[in-house]
Amino acid sequence: MKSFSYPYMVCYADTDAGGVVYHARYIDMAERARMAMLMELGLSCRAALQSEKPFGLMIRKIEAEYIKPAFLEDRLTIETRLISMGGATMEFVQDVKRGEELLVSMKLTAFTVSGVGKPTRIPAAMREKLAALL
Amino acid sequence: MKSFSYPYMVCYADTDAGGVVYHARYIDMAERARMAMLMELGLSCRAALQSEKPFGLMIRKIEAEYIKPAFLEDRLTIETRLISMGGATMEFVQDVKRGEELLVSMKLTAFTVSGVGKPTRIPAAMREKLAALL
Amino acid sequence: MKSFSYPYMVCYADTDAGGVVYHARYIDMAERARMAMLMELGLSCRAALQSEKPFGLMIRKIEAEYIKPAFLEDRLTIETRLISMGGATMEFVQDVKRGEELLVSMKLTAFTVSGVGKPTRIPAAMREKLAALL
Amino acid sequence: MKSFSYPYMVCYADTDAGGVVYHARYIDMAERARMAMLMELGLSCRAALQSEKPFGLMIRKIEAEYIKPAFLEDRLTIETRLISMGGATMEFVQDVKRGEELLVSMKLTAFTVSGVGKPTRIPAAMREKLAALL
Repeated sequence: MKSFSYPYMVCYADTDAGGVVYHARYIDMAERARMAMLMELGLSCRAALQSEKPFGLMIRKIEAEYIKPAFLEDRLTIETRLISMGGATMEFVQDVKRGEELLVSMKLTAFTVSGVGKPTRIPAAMREKLAALL
Repeated sequence: MKSFSYPYMVCYADTDAGGVVYHARYIDMAERARMAMLMELGLSCRAALQSEKPFGLMIRKIEAEYIKPAFLEDRLTIETRLISMGGATMEFVQDVKRGEELLVSMKLTAFTVSGVGKPTRIPAAMREKLAALL
Repeated sequence: MKSFSYPYMVCYADTDAGGVVYHARYIDMAERARMAMLMELGLSCRAALQSEKPFGLMIRKIEAEYIKPAFLEDRLTIETRLISMGGATMEFVQDVKRGEELLVSMKLTAFTVSGVGKPTRIPAAMREKLAALL
Repeated sequence: MKSFSYPYMVCYADTDAGGVVYHARYIDMAERARMAMLMELGLSCRAALQSEKPFGLMIRKIEAEYIKPAFLEDRLTIETRLISMGGATMEFVQDVKRGEELLVSMKLTAFTVSGVGKPTRIPAAMREKLAALL
């Protein structure tokens, strides 16, 4: 199972008055990391939305466990792994780390939807590229 | 010139590690206030996007002056006034207040765009409703 | 178990290029609803942070299930219930609805931390007020 | 006048239902670019907040002009220049570009505040490093 590593520096916009990164911001970060991983595989969400048979990825489920807080200017790494792939669904595990310390661990289930918003099978070309990650 | 008043309570999501509301969040708040004002006039951005001649509002210019900070749980009011209307443009002034204290003053220029993203005249039905604000 | 109902209108800031509310924004909404519920009980996060024995609430775990999308200008309701309370932890269920339709269901575990960031027992005054919700 | 170039890829979190980057998100991006520039100069906002004489940067004024929209997956560059420095204030120009195209041009005035939130002179060590940018 290949892991994709995405670097991220914590800015004021990510933090809250408690002095730490706001919990929902890790979920935004996770999207940046997944998109960078897909782009690296040559998979473009924009091309998918604009293709003849438009499709997109939607999130069905998120589980996030917050272990330690991150702070302003922390240099984080988001490790992303695709852990399973079904007909229309993908499961990702995404860990936010500061060096070796695990701060947040997320598990996300995404699925492909057609242009009219119905769940649809993962297109073959995408499936093939994603399979290389498993 | 009619002013529309929109109440807003500051949550953690709005704040940053400096202990105050993050500067860009006032611009999000301002959109909430404008949308609530338009809805009150019977103007729906969603209906506009989905109409036969789809159009939308885009922001061309923002000037924001930050006078005093807002804090967690502050109960703010956003006062919105339409100050001018041209062929395709509208100018709004939006003041964020805590009681009588002025915290942030914004001036925004918006314009109407057609479905293909070209500037387009403000549709007559919208113009008529907006004119009531001037 | 008492449920607290919080109204929310979807603005552009909440949506993404897929035309629906972005998944992480529901988690921001959920915080607004929890804060409004706590304020209604007379519990202030700000007073807690500034008290002699400062404490705050942190999120330990989030589970979010996305059932149906919400769209621009949707008038949503966030139903918040406290479902259990331990020594330092609270579990909330928060459902985002559009009328009777359930769109997103979240379960969050929060815990109280002292000013130096250590988990600490829920202060008695807070516990008493929260107990009224169970 | 030295320009600092910061790369940024547009994710779903940055976009709205109009299919373009939401106007307030450019202001978040601009902060990321300024922070990266300061870090490159060896200036840490976190160290400043935690120093013996704590100080921070606050925004006093923003002017943003929106020229062309950015779209999902666009690879943008944010060009940041410090254009002037007073006793307590700094003026930055930040341009968001897609290749050679100018999409958004921002001018921001920031000022240094002491730990108790009062405007204070830019500390000598910081002033010296910033002067190298002018």
